Amino acid sequence: MNDFIPVYVMGVYMTNTLHGLTPVVIISNDEGGIMPIYVGMSEGVSINSAANNSITPRPMTHDLITSILERLDANISSVFIDEIKDGIYYARLILNYDDTTIEIDARPSDCISLAVRTNAPIMVHSSVFHASTIREDEMEGMMTLDSFVNSY
Amino acid sequence: MNDFIPVYVMGVYMTNTLHGLTPVVIISNDEGGIMPIYVGMSEGVSINSAANNSITPRPMTHDLITSILERLDANISSVFIDEIKDGIYYARLILNYDDTTIEIDARPSDCISLAVRTNAPIMVHSSVFHASTIREDEMEGMMTLDSFVNSY
Repeated sequence: MNDFIPVYVMGVYMTNTLHGLTPVVIISNDEGGIMPIYVGMSEGVSINSAANNSITPRPMTHDLITSILERLDANISSVFIDEIKDGIYYARLILNYDDTTIEIDARPSDCISLAVRTNAPIMVHSSVFHASTIREDEMEGMMTLDSFVNSY
Repeated sequence: MNDFIPVYVMGVYMTNTLHGLTPVVIISNDEGGIMPIYVGMSEGVSINSAANNSITPRPMTHDLITSILERLDANISSVFIDEIKDGIYYARLILNYDDTTIEIDARPSDCISLAVRTNAPIMVHSSVFHASTIREDEMEGMMTLDSFVNSY
């Protein structure tokens, strides 16, 4: 457990990559280290919406997941981002249910989107965090997802 | 219950709308009536991937939902598309769990994506179906989501 670092979502931004303008979730630890996680547009919108406590007219997919968990009396105790392999991040969703702990393989974007909705801790393996951090000046030129969406 | 019509997913297509090229799920009933449901790109990809039984390297969000349900011993007995209000469709996910039935408010796109993954029946209220059907020739010019994606 000591190998995992608690992190927080700083925000969702748009950044230029080789594949064009892409949403990126910026997470940060207590010491101000920042790490980008590239996500799909709908995942970015979903995380951004939860981080801003904005309410959508109809439940988004991750809102549906939290409704399902609530109705089945399960809750998310934490999420873990464990590993990067060939540029793909691996993560786990940890559920408390009926006095047991259930671990489910998931993508970091789904885990983060659910953690932000339920205030569950987000833990990143220190090797993943240290391999992925960027300097603050590398965030220059990124615009928030909100300002990107509002520019349309 | 007699007011609901069982439908099947014919495929996911791309079609031109006022908002540009948009994914649309085409569903059909036993009599060959066809009804379009416009969805977001990620929902379209998710439904298409399940309809084609294609396996993605990492679980998509709806795969995560089916994993959660499986691990919590719940299953989807059916999904209902109930109503259109101001152009927005309302739907319900019906779960069997611990000898009880649980109904959860959801968007049709999430319901369809989950139903296709679990072979659960998709039921559309007859008033919604009859208000939404199109003629087969209105599908002219639509291209499958697969051919759209492969053209990139």
